[in-house]
Amino acid sequence: MTAYSAVTREVVRDLERLLGAHNVAVDPEKLASYSRDEVGLQFWDREYRAEVLVFPESTGHVSAVLAYADSRRIPVTPRGAGTGLSGGAVPAFGGIVMAFDRMNRILDIDLENLTITAEPGVVTAEIQAAAARHGLEYVGDPCSGDASFIGGNVAENAGGNKVIKYGTTGANVLALEVVLPSGKVTWFGGKRRKDVTGLNLVHLIVGSEGILGVVTRVVLKLVPRQEKVVDLLVPFSTVEEAIALVPRVMREVKLIPSSLEFMDRNSLSIVSRYLGSRLPYQEAGAHLIIQLEGNDEEVLSDQYERVGDLCFENGALEVFVADNRNFRDQIWKTRKNIAEAIIVLYTKYAKEDLVVPTSKIPSLLESVSEACRRYSLEAVNYGHVGDGNIHVNLLVDESCEDWHEAIEGARRDLYLATRELGGTLSGEHGIGLKRKAYLGMFLDDTQLEIIRGIKRVFDPNLILNPGKIVDL
Amino acid sequence: MTAYSAVTREVVRDLERLLGAHNVAVDPEKLASYSRDEVGLQFWDREYRAEVLVFPESTGHVSAVLAYADSRRIPVTPRGAGTGLSGGAVPAFGGIVMAFDRMNRILDIDLENLTITAEPGVVTAEIQAAAARHGLEYVGDPCSGDASFIGGNVAENAGGNKVIKYGTTGANVLALEVVLPSGKVTWFGGKRRKDVTGLNLVHLIVGSEGILGVVTRVVLKLVPRQEKVVDLLVPFSTVEEAIALVPRVMREVKLIPSSLEFMDRNSLSIVSRYLGSRLPYQEAGAHLIIQLEGNDEEVLSDQYERVGDLCFENGALEVFVADNRNFRDQIWKTRKNIAEAIIVLYTKYAKEDLVVPTSKIPSLLESVSEACRRYSLEAVNYGHVGDGNIHVNLLVDESCEDWHEAIEGARRDLYLATRELGGTLSGEHGIGLKRKAYLGMFLDDTQLEIIRGIKRVFDPNLILNPGKIVDL
Repeated sequence: MTAYSAVTREVVRDLERLLGAHNVAVDPEKLASYSRDEVGLQFWDREYRAEVLVFPESTGHVSAVLAYADSRRIPVTPRGAGTGLSGGAVPAFGGIVMAFDRMNRILDIDLENLTITAEPGVVTAEIQAAAARHGLEYVGDPCSGDASFIGGNVAENAGGNKVIKYGTTGANVLALEVVLPSGKVTWFGGKRRKDVTGLNLVHLIVGSEGILGVVTRVVLKLVPRQEKVVDLLVPFSTVEEAIALVPRVMREVKLIPSSLEFMDRNSLSIVSRYLGSRLPYQEAGAHLIIQLEGNDEEVLSDQYERVGDLCFENGALEVFVADNRNFRDQIWKTRKNIAEAIIVLYTKYAKEDLVVPTSKIPSLLESVSEACRRYSLEAVNYGHVGDGNIHVNLLVDESCEDWHEAIEGARRDLYLATRELGGTLSGEHGIGLKRKAYLGMFLDDTQLEIIRGIKRVFDPNLILNPGKIVDL
Repeated sequence: MTAYSAVTREVVRDLERLLGAHNVAVDPEKLASYSRDEVGLQFWDREYRAEVLVFPESTGHVSAVLAYADSRRIPVTPRGAGTGLSGGAVPAFGGIVMAFDRMNRILDIDLENLTITAEPGVVTAEIQAAAARHGLEYVGDPCSGDASFIGGNVAENAGGNKVIKYGTTGANVLALEVVLPSGKVTWFGGKRRKDVTGLNLVHLIVGSEGILGVVTRVVLKLVPRQEKVVDLLVPFSTVEEAIALVPRVMREVKLIPSSLEFMDRNSLSIVSRYLGSRLPYQEAGAHLIIQLEGNDEEVLSDQYERVGDLCFENGALEVFVADNRNFRDQIWKTRKNIAEAIIVLYTKYAKEDLVVPTSKIPSLLESVSEACRRYSLEAVNYGHVGDGNIHVNLLVDESCEDWHEAIEGARRDLYLATRELGGTLSGEHGIGLKRKAYLGMFLDDTQLEIIRGIKRVFDPNLILNPGKIVDL
């Protein structure tokens, strides 16, 4: 365990000198609001609090703060928009929180090489919008995209709704400017679709949750924007029927949908209470959203008819075709508001992010039911079923006192089941602080030692986002 | 510099005990043939030679050999089919060459989760064929695919003809069983489309050229196989016109071709001498091959008409549509035989693998012409133009005596130009032994130190494929 230095008045003055006083904050309310993410304070057994906040405006600022902090052994926790779901941006050891609100420029849209270059504080939706203005698409599409920063998406290797067709954030990152804890500034990758010049450090940084380096520039790949989109909403009686459809669409219709999302009965019920609206067949066992895209209306309609037929063959109760804006908005509003509905309607919950081979989802959901019975919990299950990624939300009745015990018991049981099914702990939310204690259930000692070793290569003084992923 | 132990008779006996005598070889001819790859012996300034060959039949064998070699400080060089173009499989320090000819089973095709699992010694084309039998596709498609092993594809992060649409080998790897130099066996990843459980070690191993661990199982992603394929062969007067087309296809026709290949005039001329056949407009400045794929004949023909129109707008001399097997075979035979033609017709050459932002390809090719004038060389340029990846082949007249000097001078000039254009040293062939001396032109000291640090984390005794990528 490293002994970290406290943030004294002298440190604050030094940071003000490095960044300008307007880019440094210590007022308690601001410190509090920049010390949490979407995990929910009630989840933690203690309060984590930054001692000082810095708002760098440039790579030079980031470098100066890191070099300073490294020399004094002050922990630095980089932070995006705070939409994370693993406590990744929570300052576990106090110290400096580095917030990227003021590095929020799109620097370049390159129409010859189909790339976009941005600072880490740009909101994901702004990247999408900027690409769309040129008939192009940035395909990263996390559900929190209206708020999340692209730098956070990179740090967590965010997934989202289009991974099945286009891959995760990482699959769309071409290059990163990274500041190491020493303050050294370097570039990994370039405006290049491929690169085997040395080890693949771009994709080591992606998903490293800010423990290896701080990203200060992101170069992303753009693809042609498909002009037509159709969403199918398909209720099934059982989860099994819904899941069995997934490989059949790929094998038999021979296409990869741009989204393949799943919502269970409880998901629709809770979001319905929150939004006050209903989807058809609300009481069905499972709903799929299948999104197809293309440039030709006729081709698309031929495709959705074939997918629809396959749905009926697989026991679909109905196939609703959302080829108009209104219905599509309603479907996606429902899907995207499940997470928020839980936060608003419950105070005691754990949001899990399990991933298993797609065919194992029904078995996983059986284990969820079993754990709920055992620990008197309710579960809301939804997610990116094309990727095998299910957001299992364990909800506790408000009257329950020892809810942490119940949740921890259920999590452990579920993780065991997930491991048994060839799955893992997190598909897109990350380990952070929240899942660190359970990492050893999924990675062996050899792997944990490799992760620790790589951490020490990048951050020998262990100042960068300490307490995340693994203990050192 | 580590002091390595020699392979004594006792070592050979020990290896025979571990693997069975039939899996160990020391006869000089075999040692010689397993000590080279496709770089060409004439390129090296000395002879590299394995002291003993082992042919593991299982992960257990691999583990036993590595643990043994690690304890005795004997270098181990893993080797696929020897189709590499960087000397990656050349035993720079002698010792043991570990060949995967006998770990060549496809272990599992999972039609529910769309994956294929194979041992490293399976030929790439066999993986493709096995997937095709189920109406699926493994999209890795290196030009050497009829001979290369999938393990070698992973080690080098092989590219090939379909990267523009589907990404490199790495983009299609879901999981790897890896044996570390200590002999420990571990798994990175799983049958999962996404995974943020700890650092991304799968993609750190991919492309690491066998310096971090030895891959003993590969789990690959499969996608729906598209039923119809059309290739366009499009001659242009100038390289500029051909390259300017690339982003226009994506932006204006709004599709990503499955291949977008480039051949310059010298490419066609040399392959024509080798094969004795000609393509139309053989004397044009540049030819593109544009491959489109889909499931619907009509859609495809609409697409290639739009692409064809765009080609004419961009100055194409003609647009040939290869919608029949014969013409398509001729086009691809031409494209895939350029490399072989060079090897057969020349003895003094360097095959480079530069990658730049696509829009910079014309500037890169100007630098190639300049270097050729300066050093009295000829160049044959072709490659994966959709990825910005050009195989620049520098050819020396047979009568030239000091050809190494000429080649080295030209390489240095070209690398400087490539760097200036935002490009890098290798897109898909790797650094290996051949490009190691030039890595410092593209990576700064910070990056080189990170690579060395990561190497030491995995391989503290430096026994695994020493002499590759970086010196330690």
